[in-house]
Amino acid sequence: MKRIDYPEPIRAVVAQLRRMPGIGPRSAQRIALWMVTARNARPGEIAEAITELEGAVRSCKTCGFFASGELCEVCTDPARQSDLLCVVETASDVLPLERTGAFRGRYHVLGGRIAPLDHVGPEDLSIDQLLQRVRCNPTGEVILALGADVEGEATASYLAALLKEFPLEVSRIAQGLPAGGGLEHADELTLNRALSGRIKWV
Amino acid sequence: MKRIDYPEPIRAVVAQLRRMPGIGPRSAQRIALWMVTARNARPGEIAEAITELEGAVRSCKTCGFFASGELCEVCTDPARQSDLLCVVETASDVLPLERTGAFRGRYHVLGGRIAPLDHVGPEDLSIDQLLQRVRCNPTGEVILALGADVEGEATASYLAALLKEFPLEVSRIAQGLPAGGGLEHADELTLNRALSGRIKWV
Repeated sequence: MKRIDYPEPIRAVVAQLRRMPGIGPRSAQRIALWMVTARNARPGEIAEAITELEGAVRSCKTCGFFASGELCEVCTDPARQSDLLCVVETASDVLPLERTGAFRGRYHVLGGRIAPLDHVGPEDLSIDQLLQRVRCNPTGEVILALGADVEGEATASYLAALLKEFPLEVSRIAQGLPAGGGLEHADELTLNRALSGRIKWV
Repeated sequence: MKRIDYPEPIRAVVAQLRRMPGIGPRSAQRIALWMVTARNARPGEIAEAITELEGAVRSCKTCGFFASGELCEVCTDPARQSDLLCVVETASDVLPLERTGAFRGRYHVLGGRIAPLDHVGPEDLSIDQLLQRVRCNPTGEVILALGADVEGEATASYLAALLKEFPLEVSRIAQGLPAGGGLEHADELTLNRALSGRIKWV
C-alpha cells in the first residue's frame, strides 16, 4: 500500500509557507488547503501581490526607511522637523514609533546593531551616513531609539561617543515598566532601570 | 504632517496575508516585512508555488480527494481494498485518517454535510455518486467518518437510511474520550457518548 500524501503542488505551497516567520506545519497545511478548497481564496491574487513586492520596495536614500521611490514619505514631507533625528535599528522600527504620534522629526535607520558575535561591526551599519547627515544639516537633538538589550546598549554608547563632537543633544528613549505592567511581572533589570530612570514628580 | 504608512506593495501583501485562515494583523505584517527585509525570503519562489497551485489540483473523479490527474493516489493504488469505503465530509479529512495507518480501504468525499441553515441539502453533496459506487462495486462495509456535531450526525443518519437497501454493513467511527484526555476535561455530551459506546472488556 502506497503512502498517500497531498499532490505535489500543495506540498510545495506548504513548504513555502513553513519558511515564513510564525507559521508552523499545522498552519501551513491549513492555509494551503484553504487556498485549494475555499471558493474565495483566489490564490492568484495572493501570488500577484507577493510578486509585486520584489523590487518595488527600496530603502530611502537618506534615512533607510521603506520607500517606493528614491526617498521615503518621511523624508519628502516638508511638515516634519528636520533638526530632530530619531535613530532606530531597522526599518520595521519606524512605524511603531510613528503610531505613537509623539514624534515629528525624521528618522535614521542603522540597518542593525553592533553585535560582534554575529560579525556585525560599526562599518556594517549606516553610521557614516548618520554623521554625514548631522554634519550637513543643522541638528538640535538625536534620539537613540535602540533596543533595551546588550547590543542595543552597546550601539547606543558607541553612537553617543561619536556624536559628542557635534553641538547637539543626544538622548535615549526611556526604559522602565511597560504600560499596564504591574511590578510583580517585571524582571529585576527592568525594575532596576525603572528605578534609576525615575522622574521627579512634585 | 502626513500620516506615514508602509509603501503600497507592502500593504497589498499584508491585506492578502490577512485573508488567510489563522493570520491576524500582526502576523500578516511580520510576514510581509520578513519578505521585504530577510535575505533568504525569496518571495518570488513563494509566489511561484502559489501560482502553480491554481488549476494544478483537481478533485478525484471517483472519490473526491485531491488529485493531480483524473484519479487520486488512493483510487489508483491496486493494493487497497476496494470493498471497504470510508465516507468523509471534506478532502482534508482523508490524510488525518491515512496517518493512523489503520485504514486500508478507499474513500468517498461528500463535499460537506447536510446543513439546512447554510442552505446545504443532500443534492449539494456527492451522495448520488456514493450510491452509484456502492451499486456498481461489491462493497462489504461503509464506514461513516463524519464529524461528531449536529450536522455530522444528521448527515450520517441520512446516509445510513439510504444505504440500508444495500447488502452491506454500515458503521460509524466511535465517539468518546480523546486519547490522553482525563474525565475532568470532557464535556457531558462526550462522556454520555463514551458511556453509551462502551466496549465489553472482559
